Amino acid sequence: MRMYDLIMKKRDGGILSKEEINFIISSYTKDYLPDYQMSALLMAIYFNGMSPGETADLTMAMAYSGEIMDLSNIKGIKVDKHSTGGVADTTTLVLAPLVAACGVPVAKMSGRGLGHTGGTIDKLESIPGMRVELSKEEFINNINKYGIAVMGQSGNIAPADKKIYALRDVTATVDSIPLIASSIMSKKIAAGADGIVLDVKVGRGAFMKDLDSAKKLSNLMVDIGNLVGKKTIAHITNMDQPLGLAIGNSLEVAEAIEVLKGHGSKDLLEVCMTLGIDMLKVAGIVKNDDKAKEMLNNALKSGIALKKFKEFIKAQGGDERVVDDITLLPQAKFVEEWTADKEVYIKDLPAFELGLIAMKLGAGRERKEDVIDLSVGIMLGGKTGDVIKKGYPIATVYANNKGRLDWAIENLKRCIVLSDEFVERPSLIYT
Amino acid sequence: MRMYDLIMKKRDGGILSKEEINFIISSYTKDYLPDYQMSALLMAIYFNGMSPGETADLTMAMAYSGEIMDLSNIKGIKVDKHSTGGVADTTTLVLAPLVAACGVPVAKMSGRGLGHTGGTIDKLESIPGMRVELSKEEFINNINKYGIAVMGQSGNIAPADKKIYALRDVTATVDSIPLIASSIMSKKIAAGADGIVLDVKVGRGAFMKDLDSAKKLSNLMVDIGNLVGKKTIAHITNMDQPLGLAIGNSLEVAEAIEVLKGHGSKDLLEVCMTLGIDMLKVAGIVKNDDKAKEMLNNALKSGIALKKFKEFIKAQGGDERVVDDITLLPQAKFVEEWTADKEVYIKDLPAFELGLIAMKLGAGRERKEDVIDLSVGIMLGGKTGDVIKKGYPIATVYANNKGRLDWAIENLKRCIVLSDEFVERPSLIYT
Repeated sequence: MRMYDLIMKKRDGGILSKEEINFIISSYTKDYLPDYQMSALLMAIYFNGMSPGETADLTMAMAYSGEIMDLSNIKGIKVDKHSTGGVADTTTLVLAPLVAACGVPVAKMSGRGLGHTGGTIDKLESIPGMRVELSKEEFINNINKYGIAVMGQSGNIAPADKKIYALRDVTATVDSIPLIASSIMSKKIAAGADGIVLDVKVGRGAFMKDLDSAKKLSNLMVDIGNLVGKKTIAHITNMDQPLGLAIGNSLEVAEAIEVLKGHGSKDLLEVCMTLGIDMLKVAGIVKNDDKAKEMLNNALKSGIALKKFKEFIKAQGGDERVVDDITLLPQAKFVEEWTADKEVYIKDLPAFELGLIAMKLGAGRERKEDVIDLSVGIMLGGKTGDVIKKGYPIATVYANNKGRLDWAIENLKRCIVLSDEFVERPSLIYT
Repeated sequence: MRMYDLIMKKRDGGILSKEEINFIISSYTKDYLPDYQMSALLMAIYFNGMSPGETADLTMAMAYSGEIMDLSNIKGIKVDKHSTGGVADTTTLVLAPLVAACGVPVAKMSGRGLGHTGGTIDKLESIPGMRVELSKEEFINNINKYGIAVMGQSGNIAPADKKIYALRDVTATVDSIPLIASSIMSKKIAAGADGIVLDVKVGRGAFMKDLDSAKKLSNLMVDIGNLVGKKTIAHITNMDQPLGLAIGNSLEVAEAIEVLKGHGSKDLLEVCMTLGIDMLKVAGIVKNDDKAKEMLNNALKSGIALKKFKEFIKAQGGDERVVDDITLLPQAKFVEEWTADKEVYIKDLPAFELGLIAMKLGAGRERKEDVIDLSVGIMLGGKTGDVIKKGYPIATVYANNKGRLDWAIENLKRCIVLSDEFVERPSLIYT
């Protein structure tokens, strides 16, 4: 088998066989294939796509390029959840303790933030003492003991995907639906869960800009999951505006705590409930939506979910007192509100721009090697369609540098659109 | 300027500006750009093409990536000729002395053979003592003194093209008309001629398999030439069957000598006359085709062209006696004829297969580093549509190894198609 012939085959619209895909991925992972041949193949895939079968083969080849987490020592059906990434999307921090409180074992590997989007691992690190690098044994023990553990992705999970993603990132071959789908699914499969619940974000703050692309990605990932024997459900949700109200690491942890206490962002809660229902169903805990909803609501109202969150924090070395006193989280030196000088409707909250402003405040990374500031960010006063009363904040900026604070306020005023007239709330969950 | 953005621009169907193309070529030549970004761009160009303007900019950027031959010390309008490569195409060996004999200064850089096609430099090396590596001074002096010099392409002619071609060769991005056109034209422009006559081969033995692609390549090269101020004319000729009767280095030199003596392959002569007419016109020696034809015919009939060939050989250290005694050329140990056992028409001579058989006899290179055997090859008894009388050779094989000889005869019998019925001669010159 020669890589040249396989590039030509894909370039000419052919379908690569499982053996051919295995050859490519195994050779590339072992550094037997040069990057320049791989990038030519990736660009040919960008143009000619891949069939669902090819994408499933690629997914499995990448998943098996490294370690497959063996979660067989954990009792019950393990369900993983994945979001394609967005702004103010703190779902995992709410959902993990919530479904764990309902008896679903949560074994979650999460990532760090890059660009305008945040990452669960960064957010968790806002909690003083919290450890996100666990040994495999500790990870499994914690799940068996507390029903929940969240850790950073181990270096040996899908190394082929890691290497290919780094190449795509510098060769303009990221925006390919089969490549995105196989990248996500290979990591989920290597992470060892039995079932997968996906949250495909769509809109200006998401990877997928339009509903049509999001549907394609969503369907393809569900197909791959089912083809490889993992029960997979996907939702498509709105990332045209931020999901929650908090953008920035400590602020998002605080927001998750609020939601677990029954307050906080309604949209964030709604997405968590939608995904939670599916997680309970995939885990085989409940048969129908109503029963699942009831269980989740009980876990929230009874405070069991919040207790589970505390337990989870403590188990990973974190200071669980943050749940009762959010001032224990890193605090920004400067806090400034932009208040409404009259009653206004929020007309537009462009997610990408808001994510970038938070990133430039220090909440995110422009490059992988950047160090982030866990205390800074933006707190929105409401979401699109909400009314902000005179004197109330449209947005509050948390910063550690006066210059950046002023810059952020100025830019928020430039990009957030207000209206004197009624504004309809956009859809939150598309499918 | 970032290469990433330029890959994305081309990927999305954009037109690269002159500045962008200059940035890419100059950075890549200096090893500032990694191969994996260049190969991604090349694959994007494969899919989205390039406009004539972009192709001209790419051509000039590659031409100017190294040395531009300064031929200003040579009197007259220097005209270069280029063939896109084929089998039994000995045009240069006939044409160079022929037009030089008519007063056109011939300053020609030629290449070596690869795969099923031969190269002028290899053929010239069949002549004992012939030197094809000349200094720039010697090259120019010879042209001023004898009106003719042919040398191997210097390492510093269009180094960007050399580097990019090597990358295309391993990333399945060779078959792109703008990339082929710019590669050819960049070398011609760097070689310093004032005018260019192109012979675009089409058919099974050529790069371009169909007339439509050949027309596109031909038109694009003419456009580029004219855009950059070099008078350029192109012809499209048949490479479905070999051009001459001889395939193999010494054999082709012998055939060229025959043609210069007024015998030998009629097709080879016809292509030489067609290209010669244009070379005389581009050089400004004549105004019309009839006058050009007359001059070329005189040069042949008077023996001046043959004398010029001798002069050229001697000037480059070769043994000019080969012109009168072709047995001074390297001779193969084994010669075997495949003769007709009855009168037959030649129905099909597949150029690619015949080129490959000659290559495997040792006349060509499978890989660049292979050493070739100058004495071996195939001599055809006729061309498609010709009658071979009973007892006359359909083909003669020249080899230095009995096993290869038998193998070649067997394969010639497999691929050459004969017929008892009349076969029409195919077109030779399409445009």
